[in-house]
Amino acid sequence: MEFEALKKSGITNLLSAFGRSIWLPQGIFYWTGRAKKEAAIDATIGSAQGPESEIVDGAPDKAVTFYIPSVTRYLGGPGSEDEGRGRGTRTSSEDIVAYAPMLGLPDLRKAWRDWILRKVGELRSRVEPCLTLPAVTPGVTGGIFMAAKLFVDKDEVVVSPDRLWENYSNVVERHIGGRIETFPFFEGGRFNLKGMQRKLLDTLAEQSKALLMLNFPNNPVGFNPPKDIVQPIVETLVEVVEQAGKPIVVLCDDAYEGYTYDPDALQRSMFGDLCDAHRRILPIKLDGISKEFLCYGGRLGFLTFGLPSGLDADRKALQEELDNKLGGVIRSTVSNCTRPVQAAILKALGQMDQVLAERGRVVDVLGRRARLLQAEFAKVDLPQFKPLPFNAGFFCFCDIEGVPANKLAEHLISKYKIGVVPTEAGKINGIRIAFCSVPEKDIPTLVSGVVSAIKDLAG
Amino acid sequence: MEFEALKKSGITNLLSAFGRSIWLPQGIFYWTGRAKKEAAIDATIGSAQGPESEIVDGAPDKAVTFYIPSVTRYLGGPGSEDEGRGRGTRTSSEDIVAYAPMLGLPDLRKAWRDWILRKVGELRSRVEPCLTLPAVTPGVTGGIFMAAKLFVDKDEVVVSPDRLWENYSNVVERHIGGRIETFPFFEGGRFNLKGMQRKLLDTLAEQSKALLMLNFPNNPVGFNPPKDIVQPIVETLVEVVEQAGKPIVVLCDDAYEGYTYDPDALQRSMFGDLCDAHRRILPIKLDGISKEFLCYGGRLGFLTFGLPSGLDADRKALQEELDNKLGGVIRSTVSNCTRPVQAAILKALGQMDQVLAERGRVVDVLGRRARLLQAEFAKVDLPQFKPLPFNAGFFCFCDIEGVPANKLAEHLISKYKIGVVPTEAGKINGIRIAFCSVPEKDIPTLVSGVVSAIKDLAG
Repeated sequence: MEFEALKKSGITNLLSAFGRSIWLPQGIFYWTGRAKKEAAIDATIGSAQGPESEIVDGAPDKAVTFYIPSVTRYLGGPGSEDEGRGRGTRTSSEDIVAYAPMLGLPDLRKAWRDWILRKVGELRSRVEPCLTLPAVTPGVTGGIFMAAKLFVDKDEVVVSPDRLWENYSNVVERHIGGRIETFPFFEGGRFNLKGMQRKLLDTLAEQSKALLMLNFPNNPVGFNPPKDIVQPIVETLVEVVEQAGKPIVVLCDDAYEGYTYDPDALQRSMFGDLCDAHRRILPIKLDGISKEFLCYGGRLGFLTFGLPSGLDADRKALQEELDNKLGGVIRSTVSNCTRPVQAAILKALGQMDQVLAERGRVVDVLGRRARLLQAEFAKVDLPQFKPLPFNAGFFCFCDIEGVPANKLAEHLISKYKIGVVPTEAGKINGIRIAFCSVPEKDIPTLVSGVVSAIKDLAG
Repeated sequence: MEFEALKKSGITNLLSAFGRSIWLPQGIFYWTGRAKKEAAIDATIGSAQGPESEIVDGAPDKAVTFYIPSVTRYLGGPGSEDEGRGRGTRTSSEDIVAYAPMLGLPDLRKAWRDWILRKVGELRSRVEPCLTLPAVTPGVTGGIFMAAKLFVDKDEVVVSPDRLWENYSNVVERHIGGRIETFPFFEGGRFNLKGMQRKLLDTLAEQSKALLMLNFPNNPVGFNPPKDIVQPIVETLVEVVEQAGKPIVVLCDDAYEGYTYDPDALQRSMFGDLCDAHRRILPIKLDGISKEFLCYGGRLGFLTFGLPSGLDADRKALQEELDNKLGGVIRSTVSNCTRPVQAAILKALGQMDQVLAERGRVVDVLGRRARLLQAEFAKVDLPQFKPLPFNAGFFCFCDIEGVPANKLAEHLISKYKIGVVPTEAGKINGIRIAFCSVPEKDIPTLVSGVVSAIKDLAG
C-alpha cells in the first residue's frame, strides 16, 4: 500500500515516524478473503472447524468453529442454562469463540457510527460526511494508545489541561516517549481559553503540528464546558491554526460522554463541534463501552476520525489507508478485540432506547450525588479547601492549600476511614473524590471528614 | 521502584531499552488498595457503584458496580434467560462489568499456573520453583508483543526457524523495529540443530544476548519435535550459552500446545525442559485460550517466566518487579484484559477433566484429518511437491518447486475452488494448508486438487 490518499490529504504530515512506517501486509487476509468468496474447500482459516455433530452428540452436521461447551456455557452460549429457550439472550458459539475481524465486527462498526451520529444530535448533517467507520480498540485506553502511537513522536509535546487522567503519562510519556505539557484548566472559574491558546502557539513555534488532549467530562475534574463556551473553544483553535499556519490533532477522550448533570453544560462530546471546523484541525474521537455502557471489564473502545470535508483525497481510499495503518497497530499488539463482548454490544446497540432508559437510572443516581456534593461543598467555609467547578462525569477535584495532598489523604484514611486519591504534581496539590462510587447517604460524612482532616492538619 | 532484584539477577541486562525504562507508578492503585482495606467510605474507585436497588426494581440494597441489564443479559449475566436458575452457569454482573486487575484476576493467575504445572507433567518438581505467576495478556499475540517490547531492541536480531507465523514480522519488525533472522527448519528431515546453533552463535558474536522464538507445534509447519530430539535441542542451547558466555531469551510460543497427533512426539511445550537448563537461559512461556480452550475470540493469553533457580535475587522481589514492568506495558496499551472471559475461563479451569474430555473430541477429529492428509500425501509422486514433516497443530506446509507459490494459490482458487495460503519469501516457496478447517471428507479432493494444479502449471 502506497498511502497515496493519506499523502494527498496531508494527513501523512501529521503522523509520527511510527505512523508513517507502519502498514499491514495483506498476506493471509487476502487469501482468507478470496477463499471465503470463492472456495468450495477452504484450507486458509486458522481455527478448527467442522460439523458440529463431530464434537457434540446430537448436534447438527452444519459446520461450526469447534468449541468447548464447558467454556461457552459461562458466556451465555451453548451448554448454558438458557440454551434453546425463548428470550433471545442466548449467544451463538460463533459469537463467542470465533475471531472478530481485526478492526471489529463490520456490523458493530456501522452500529457504533450510527450511535455517534445519534450522540451528536443536531450536528448530524455536519458530522456525517467527516466520520470514518469506527475501528474497534481494546478499551478506550487501547484507542488512546493507538492514536498516540500513530501521531505522537518521541520528544514531541502533547498539550493538555493541567488536571488529567494519570494514565496519559503512562501512554504518552513512559510508553511512547512524548512529553505532556499543560496549561491551567481554569481561569477565573471558567475554562482557560487564553492559557490553551498560548500553550498551543508556543508548541507550534517549536514543532510542525500540535496535539491536544480534550477530556470532557473530565477525569479527575468532573467538568463539562457550559454550552456558551463551546463555540469560543472551537474559535480559539481555529485562530491558532490560522495564526500558526500549522495543524492541530485533537484527541477527544470521550470516555465519560453522556454523564452531564447540568442542563446548561454541553451534553455531548466536543468532537462534533470540531468536525470540519477547519481543514487544519483533525479531531479523533475515542469513546467506548466502559462508562457509556457501564461495562468497564468488557474492554471495547472505538477510534473514529473526523476528516475535514475539504481534504484533497478520495474518502474511500482514505478509509482504506487509515484502516491499514490501524490494522498494523492492532494486529501487532493484540491481533483483534474480544468477540463475545462485541457481539453483546452489537445486540445492545439494536435496542438503544431500552439501554438508555436503563442507563438513565444510573445517570440520575450520579446526578443526585453530584448535586448533593455541590450543596455540601457550598456550606464549607475553609480557605484551604477549593473545589473546582464540576457538573459531569464520575469525579470532582478539590485543590488544597497549606496541607500536602498526600499527607491529607493519609490522614483521611487513617483517622476518618475515608479513601480519596491525592495529587501532588508541580503546582497542583489536591484530592480527587470519586462520587461515582460513594452512596448518597455517605456524602455529608465524606465532606465533613475532609473538612475535619484539613482542619486537623492546618492546625 | 528501583528494580534491585532485576539488577541483581542479571535480568536487567536482557531487557530492551524500553524494558529497562518502563515502570508503573503506584498512583491511584496505591490509594485504591489502601481504601479497599481501610475505608468506610471509598471515594477512590473510578467505576459507578451503589445499592443495586437504586438501578433495578426489586433488587437488594447490596452495593454493586452499576450495570445495564440490556448489556449483561447477552453475556450470560443479569437480565438473561437463565437468571436465577439452577445449573450454575449464570455470571454475576460483577464478573461481567467490573474491571479486572491489570495483571489479571488473582485466582485466574493462580489457576493458570496450576494448569501449566499440570501440562508439564513429570517435570513438575523442576519447573515449579522457576515459575512466576502468569500475567494475563490480550491474547497470545498480546503476550508476544509484551515480551518483544520488554526484551527486543530496535535493530536487534530475533532468531527463528524459517517457517514462522507471519504476525511475528508485524510485531517484531514493523512495530518494534527488530530484525528476524532465520535458519532452515529441517536438515535431512529432522529439526535443524546445527543450523539453530550456528545462527545463535553468529548472533551472539554481534550482540550481548540472543532471542530465540520457538513455536511448537508450529504455525505454519504442524510440527512438534519427536521426544528424542528435545534433550539435544536443550543441550545445544546450553552449549551455545556456554561457548558464547552470553545469555539467550527463549520465547516459547505455545499457542498450539496440546494438539499433537503422534505418540512419539513431544506432547507438551518445550518450556518445561528449558526451565533451569542453564542460568543463562531464560525461557518465557506464551500460551492462551485461543487454541487451548478453543476460544479464539475471547482474547486471553498468559505470559510466564521460567526463572533459573540459581539467580542471585529474592524471588518475591523479582515477581513484584516483573509485575511492575508488565503492568507498565499493559496499563499503557490496554489497561487490563476482558473480565467476562477471565471469569469464564477461571470457572472452566475449575473443571479441567470435563474441559479436556470435551476438547479431546476436537483433538481426535484433527488427528484423524492429519493422519488422512499424511496418507494422501504419501500416495503423491510428484517431484515439485514436498510436504514438510507434520504431526501436530492446525497446519501443514508443502514446499513447492518450479511453480511460484502465489501463482499456484491463484490457480487453485480459480480453477479448483480450493483456498490455501502461499508463501514466497527468500528461498521459501510453498503453501500452508489449514487442515484444522477442512472436514475429513474433503481432504482427498483437496490433495488431488493441489496435485492437479501443480501439474497444470509445471506443464
